[in-house]
Amino acid sequence: MMPADEFVARIRSGDVRALARAVSLVENGAPESRELLSTCFPMSRRALRLGITGVPGAGKSTLVSHLVQAWRAEGSKAAVVAVDPSSPFTGGALLGDRIRIQERAGSLDEINGIYVRSMATRGALGGLAETTGEVVDVIAASGRDVILIETVGVGQDEVEIVRLADVTVVVVVPGMGDAVQSLKAGIMEIADIFVINKADREGADRLEKEILSMQSLVGVPVAVNQWSAPVVKTVGTTGEGVEDLFAAIGRRSQWLAQEGRLTARREAFWRNRIEKMLREALINEAGVHGIGQQEMGEYAEQVAMGTVDPYQLIPALTKRLFNSSKELQ
Amino acid sequence: MMPADEFVARIRSGDVRALARAVSLVENGAPESRELLSTCFPMSRRALRLGITGVPGAGKSTLVSHLVQAWRAEGSKAAVVAVDPSSPFTGGALLGDRIRIQERAGSLDEINGIYVRSMATRGALGGLAETTGEVVDVIAASGRDVILIETVGVGQDEVEIVRLADVTVVVVVPGMGDAVQSLKAGIMEIADIFVINKADREGADRLEKEILSMQSLVGVPVAVNQWSAPVVKTVGTTGEGVEDLFAAIGRRSQWLAQEGRLTARREAFWRNRIEKMLREALINEAGVHGIGQQEMGEYAEQVAMGTVDPYQLIPALTKRLFNSSKELQ
Repeated sequence: MMPADEFVARIRSGDVRALARAVSLVENGAPESRELLSTCFPMSRRALRLGITGVPGAGKSTLVSHLVQAWRAEGSKAAVVAVDPSSPFTGGALLGDRIRIQERAGSLDEINGIYVRSMATRGALGGLAETTGEVVDVIAASGRDVILIETVGVGQDEVEIVRLADVTVVVVVPGMGDAVQSLKAGIMEIADIFVINKADREGADRLEKEILSMQSLVGVPVAVNQWSAPVVKTVGTTGEGVEDLFAAIGRRSQWLAQEGRLTARREAFWRNRIEKMLREALINEAGVHGIGQQEMGEYAEQVAMGTVDPYQLIPALTKRLFNSSKELQ
Repeated sequence: MMPADEFVARIRSGDVRALARAVSLVENGAPESRELLSTCFPMSRRALRLGITGVPGAGKSTLVSHLVQAWRAEGSKAAVVAVDPSSPFTGGALLGDRIRIQERAGSLDEINGIYVRSMATRGALGGLAETTGEVVDVIAASGRDVILIETVGVGQDEVEIVRLADVTVVVVVPGMGDAVQSLKAGIMEIADIFVINKADREGADRLEKEILSMQSLVGVPVAVNQWSAPVVKTVGTTGEGVEDLFAAIGRRSQWLAQEGRLTARREAFWRNRIEKMLREALINEAGVHGIGQQEMGEYAEQVAMGTVDPYQLIPALTKRLFNSSKELQ
């Protein structure tokens, strides 16, 4: 493989194939990916990460398409990372574009100057949020101004993914029954902007009242952050209200740019992420020092037979790992 | 606190209060719990772990009550660990018993010679399966012959809990719509025995066909294990079919006792569990060696500001941890 700095130089020059390859390496956790991520890191900070989350069928992809075009109209470069397996982006469709690419999940395509990447959600159980964060970093390093991350807001994985966004937009729809309820756990609290999409439907006003009353119940984030998440009404199919949404995102970005708020938000994200990285690194290093898959398998057998006590084994292994060199002194 | 061996001696002598205290220590992850678990370990292997899982309302608790009495009738000692927050055992009720204890989740009670413990599911996010496994080990060490673990079979936590069972009974009910579908992910594959409870309801035969066709689709475990999970029909309220269920559990236990199958099953469980224990121990040890909460917080801030590259930081920290003593030589 070519050296990481040459690779990244190609990515920055606009080479979509190089970017697609880099994203795949990172997604697959290839050995080269660490150096690649390290080289990308200083260039990936500038891009705004915008999370768009909501139940399937809320119209997230349509809103994403509108937003991406709003950014393009003002000369900003955007990219879309779709983690929602039901997203039409998996089909490569961007509203208003004539081009439809037969895209499979896992490929990266440029559609009218906009990068679109759909994440392979299968088989990434548990680590999907980490992988998505890394993919976003690589795409950001290619010189994008904003990365939109589209995800369904239901599972634990999705809540994790939302964490990596600087600005989180939660999309709800009238008449979806307990939609607000089903999103409640964790999502309501981290919304920076609420969107009531399909607002021409009956029940939009009632839904707005529900959100506002829930906000007043939760209360705390508003007081701490001095940012009260606005509720914006949109009709994705006609584009109605998208301007308001775009303006709300702009206001939130400006607000974040002040008094170190963006850094504080990203610090909270990295606090969690580097601990996970350290955990992975430690268990891998244990493998290097002889406590690998095979040895663990043998211990498991002995524990199952009752010849090894796991509650003594683990402290002994840990001690051995951390003190092995000391004993040589 | 009294020494662990004295503690365990009391537990084995039938001191319910000592057992309740030991279970609480383990559930709270108290410092004494490791020695306690270690002392219990050799005595905890003999008990059969029976998992009973199914959607809320499937009648699991009623079946558990019947089974417990069947064991008592043949002179075996049983205990119940209820992880289902909707379980009536939280109210301390055992079918056929006059005694109703006003039990709060987290207490342990003896009802007509049967220990009943309901797990506090709140606040144990992520670690519920580990804690349940440890609680089961302590109760097993008290000299029980069988521990019934009742759990709702829907979330990831619950699938993890099922793993610690030697024999897994999956309870479904006719007319609960997509009950089989909602259990499908992971649960269908690990069922050793299927129970169609409330089998006097319409749709029991259709449900049986669904299960059988699903089994033939999955297929593989049957061929590998040479054990085809039987489908037993019961009516919990009348006790109909409970005898068949009890017999099926007996057959499965005898099958497991042969050719090291029980050890193999437990080995798979311990393989997963000791790796988790090692991961926890390593990150704790990192804290002891100066990479604790505070230092990680400082790194997170620097990463967020862009002055530290996380992809270089983590390998450096890992190297420092594992080689710190070597450098002194």
